Amino acid sequence: MTTTTDIEGQLNRWRDRLNRFLEQVLPPNDTPPCRLHEAMRYSALAGGKRIRPMLTYASGHAFAVTPAGLDAIACAIEFIHAYSLIHDDLPAMDDDELRRGRPTCHLAFGEATAILAGDALQALAFKTLASCTAIPPEPRCRLVASLAEACGSTGMAGGQMLDLGVTGRNADLQELKQIHRLKTGALIRYSITAAAELGTRDSAEHDRLTRFGDCVGLGFQIRDDILDVTGDATLTGKAAHADAARNQPTFPALIGVDESTRAAESLLDEALDCLSAIDGDTRPLAWLASYMIRRDR
Amino acid sequence: MTTTTDIEGQLNRWRDRLNRFLEQVLPPNDTPPCRLHEAMRYSALAGGKRIRPMLTYASGHAFAVTPAGLDAIACAIEFIHAYSLIHDDLPAMDDDELRRGRPTCHLAFGEATAILAGDALQALAFKTLASCTAIPPEPRCRLVASLAEACGSTGMAGGQMLDLGVTGRNADLQELKQIHRLKTGALIRYSITAAAELGTRDSAEHDRLTRFGDCVGLGFQIRDDILDVTGDATLTGKAAHADAARNQPTFPALIGVDESTRAAESLLDEALDCLSAIDGDTRPLAWLASYMIRRDR
Repeated sequence: MTTTTDIEGQLNRWRDRLNRFLEQVLPPNDTPPCRLHEAMRYSALAGGKRIRPMLTYASGHAFAVTPAGLDAIACAIEFIHAYSLIHDDLPAMDDDELRRGRPTCHLAFGEATAILAGDALQALAFKTLASCTAIPPEPRCRLVASLAEACGSTGMAGGQMLDLGVTGRNADLQELKQIHRLKTGALIRYSITAAAELGTRDSAEHDRLTRFGDCVGLGFQIRDDILDVTGDATLTGKAAHADAARNQPTFPALIGVDESTRAAESLLDEALDCLSAIDGDTRPLAWLASYMIRRDR
Repeated sequence: MTTTTDIEGQLNRWRDRLNRFLEQVLPPNDTPPCRLHEAMRYSALAGGKRIRPMLTYASGHAFAVTPAGLDAIACAIEFIHAYSLIHDDLPAMDDDELRRGRPTCHLAFGEATAILAGDALQALAFKTLASCTAIPPEPRCRLVASLAEACGSTGMAGGQMLDLGVTGRNADLQELKQIHRLKTGALIRYSITAAAELGTRDSAEHDRLTRFGDCVGLGFQIRDDILDVTGDATLTGKAAHADAARNQPTFPALIGVDESTRAAESLLDEALDCLSAIDGDTRPLAWLASYMIRRDR
């Protein structure tokens, strides 16, 4: 793997591999309850960017973990992510209408089905990971427990709770960072560190990867906030200015677009620094970090 | 353990043990996000009957499994049950106002918090079970996977989906049984078979326990339907006639109260028959079966 094109080719192969795995693990539309499985597939196979699972394969690659051990982790992460989007979009939460360029799950299937599809995707995430015999039982238990931690009340779900609490009022930068550290950061960190768990027991390397995850997680979110202001809805697949419409505190609202862009670039620098101290091939991770923090969609 | 009083005493000690464990595992109210943890505790510590965890301790007792190995299973089951009640009560689902004699979670905390409290309780269930070192890693992985199966799209969540699908229209007895087999039956079966997994590898005993679980699960639900018609809301802690109010198919509506009572009694007989072929002390399981199928609350 020597050029950017090679790296992109590798990432595409990982994405294809994951998509095949997701397709196999999700119950087919004709398995009862059919409408529930249809809603789960609608949301989980909607062709998202698959950034979190790509981070998992890329991190595993850096530590020479075979992809067979990574499929279940990557798939579980994507199911958790898909469930969180379904629930976050609900009328009682962010009340969004557009996701990945299509009607949100509750608009396509109704609210009750959307709630259940999210619930069932969370369960399927844990089932997939816990039953993956390619990972020895002891690390598998640890990976299940840490995924549950990452998406629970002191992780992703807690971050969404904090986020709802600041909607419509002023929040400072520290508060905003803490929200993102939980709401999107926890699962992104997990995406990166889970794979490394299977490849290295070196705690200094884990610390570097955790810091790398912190930087790309926050940088990713800052970029998300910027795209909400400056982005093209036909590219992002989400309604533009949705944050402002619901009076949601964002980085651009607090410090402006230019300062937000500088903050994101500085996080990218720090992320790449963390990688430079890791022995394995971290180029796919570096590519993903740049993409996450500089993307236009 | 020789008399009914002794058995009730043992069940009370198991319930106390579980309640202490739940209390320890749930993050305290002053851990941020405080309001989310308050909602989780409000629902999970609401003093339910704890029937499912009691089944787990009683089943473990029959196969001489030490209680230390059962706490995490029992706790995970109760968290899954609590999350399912929160989500089932939501306006988009059954739209219930009263649960265990108090306002439902979304009335007490708002809909968004209730959705997140349910989501986070599901995650906490898997975290608790996956990190329980009293259970060896290999069976622990199996128990996590089978819990996820029991509460997912072909288990509990699938049953709720089917249930919503028949609201307001005619359903036949077979359809109703299939709904209950998933909606309440799957988690009740798991409560009974999970503990046995740690105590016996005899597949004939597992088959008997599974059948026992099928019988008490369905009998429990028939009794629930009967109580909705004949029960006292001050005892059940739920609004009476809620099923009829939302035009929900029930056993009494299909076959009448008397025939429903006979069906439940016949399931109890079959359940007790299954136990008689098991060597260990199954008296607490038998007590619970009678209680579940004959209770007045």
